[in-house]
Amino acid sequence: MPLTPSSTAAAEAPALPAPPSFADIEAAAARLSGQAIMTPLLANPALDAELGGRVLLKAETLQRTGSFKFRGAYNKISRLAAGPDRPRAIVAFSSGNHAQGVAAAAALAGIPALIVMPADAPSIKVDNTRGYGAEVVFFDRATEKREEIAGRIAAERGAVIVPPYDDPDVIAGQGTAGREIALQAAELDAMPDLLLVPCSGGGLTAGCALAMAALSPRTQVYAVEPAGFDDTGRSLAAGKRLANEAATGSFCDALLSREPGQITFEVNRGLLAGGLAVSDAEVAEAMEYAFRVLKLVIEPGGAVALAALLSRKIDIRGCVAAVICSGGNVDAATFAHAIMRGTG
Amino acid sequence: MPLTPSSTAAAEAPALPAPPSFADIEAAAARLSGQAIMTPLLANPALDAELGGRVLLKAETLQRTGSFKFRGAYNKISRLAAGPDRPRAIVAFSSGNHAQGVAAAAALAGIPALIVMPADAPSIKVDNTRGYGAEVVFFDRATEKREEIAGRIAAERGAVIVPPYDDPDVIAGQGTAGREIALQAAELDAMPDLLLVPCSGGGLTAGCALAMAALSPRTQVYAVEPAGFDDTGRSLAAGKRLANEAATGSFCDALLSREPGQITFEVNRGLLAGGLAVSDAEVAEAMEYAFRVLKLVIEPGGAVALAALLSRKIDIRGCVAAVICSGGNVDAATFAHAIMRGTG
Repeated sequence: MPLTPSSTAAAEAPALPAPPSFADIEAAAARLSGQAIMTPLLANPALDAELGGRVLLKAETLQRTGSFKFRGAYNKISRLAAGPDRPRAIVAFSSGNHAQGVAAAAALAGIPALIVMPADAPSIKVDNTRGYGAEVVFFDRATEKREEIAGRIAAERGAVIVPPYDDPDVIAGQGTAGREIALQAAELDAMPDLLLVPCSGGGLTAGCALAMAALSPRTQVYAVEPAGFDDTGRSLAAGKRLANEAATGSFCDALLSREPGQITFEVNRGLLAGGLAVSDAEVAEAMEYAFRVLKLVIEPGGAVALAALLSRKIDIRGCVAAVICSGGNVDAATFAHAIMRGTG
Repeated sequence: MPLTPSSTAAAEAPALPAPPSFADIEAAAARLSGQAIMTPLLANPALDAELGGRVLLKAETLQRTGSFKFRGAYNKISRLAAGPDRPRAIVAFSSGNHAQGVAAAAALAGIPALIVMPADAPSIKVDNTRGYGAEVVFFDRATEKREEIAGRIAAERGAVIVPPYDDPDVIAGQGTAGREIALQAAELDAMPDLLLVPCSGGGLTAGCALAMAALSPRTQVYAVEPAGFDDTGRSLAAGKRLANEAATGSFCDALLSREPGQITFEVNRGLLAGGLAVSDAEVAEAMEYAFRVLKLVIEPGGAVALAALLSRKIDIRGCVAAVICSGGNVDAATFAHAIMRGTG
């Protein structure tokens, strides 16, 4: 039976799932209540004095599993676990923070988890992922596609894949961080003029942009990426999804997605004010500043938004700028090297 | 004219100032509002699982100047500045955290500050003290008495000394940390069974014990000290003030007071459940744990209470235990050494 042209197109390119609504983010917040930590929105007078503005630091480093990733993973997995087709297992591919979030969320739901991780992932992330009870399978970031490995394992084991960003439930979960920023800033009577978000596949960025659009539409949201891995920034400028040339080579192990997600980019192109990019040296300086002045442990990928402020990629004088410090899972040797830079 | 015996005694040993009341702590909280940071009371599920209890971490590492000391200094100095005898200058002696608190508080009050610091103070503390605009004078911890140097300078310059702990206004200021713990714990519906406080001269401990006596009298408050510098613990056991044998030699540079204060000990002997002591190795392990799991930068002296929990100096299974992480001003080399312990 010949297919009509429209159904052929549909079979070849299935319709993109709709992005989450703000109601989905609120539902995610209700699910996460009592499981995720309402991380503090921190202030630091020395930082404010240095930048001439008021900075609100959303410390997702203090989130369960050490990064924001638990939010999206738990929102997705708790929905799956409570649904009619409770999965026999969960599979995820991740450089480490999504891995830990999925492992911890799957353990809370009582579902076995298997994580596909790059062979060069920081050992703290591998150890923690196993510590939450997940099985780890390694792949070579340069030669293998983690999506294919995860897909094969999922088919073999009857498992459900929890994607790292391009999924409405994952985006809604990450958006709860943005919702909290707006609520906490309102309590301080300091709604942000700007929000800077570390960006890889764009899930946290899209979720937070959706939350801000609902709760503080005048806040300008920026995606911050490592230089050379600024696929979202370049895609925003070009008006279409562009990939990075390299797959490895940044200090920011958490921010190496090849290109923006389809759903996340659909959201981000409509809501973001733009993209900013920072060098590895600027990231290391931000980690040292966070250690010395803020007393926070931030991993390289988690420090890019702070680095953009400290390296004056954007002027916040007279403004309220919210900044997400998105993760703190960094090996001791890497951290020691970053904080010793200034002291020889 | 012959003096009566009672007035002779009064001249020889002037009456000890009365400890602050809870009303004094509330007045201090009002003064500190908008100047000090309401530091978060943090939770960490991995820590809770490890200890089998519920731990509430009061992160005074995130306080203005990187330690709780700003609270007492600002309470004292803002009272002096607003009083009839506004000082021409402020003098303080401190190993570093009180120095920074006094320097920042004096700058806010527009009064010059001069700080007497030990020559072996961590350079981050010296740099920060100068960064807040204070003048620094060094002394040798082994051969000179800082109280005498400070007294001489105060007389020369018409300055007022802000003591590090044995002062009702300073104790009341530090007590605002305990007041916040009780208020924040009440919001979580988790009033602490135990409160562990890093202790040197006893100002933070006494202030927090007074706050707890008013807001949560069933909470058992413990002073935690470095082994060999556990003057408060031994004094509590003996029922009288005892001095430490050594003046130097602990990893915990912030906790080297020679003996308990008079006012602080008067409070602490009446209110504390006891004292706990931890080794330098246990402190370094707690710093590494705080880095790896909690994502917090804690200095050695600030980590003793956490170290007491992690080294099982007290059993908190089934209990709610509040712990003050009292400061985060640690040099990069010292911190790097502590966090690399576990990794060779």
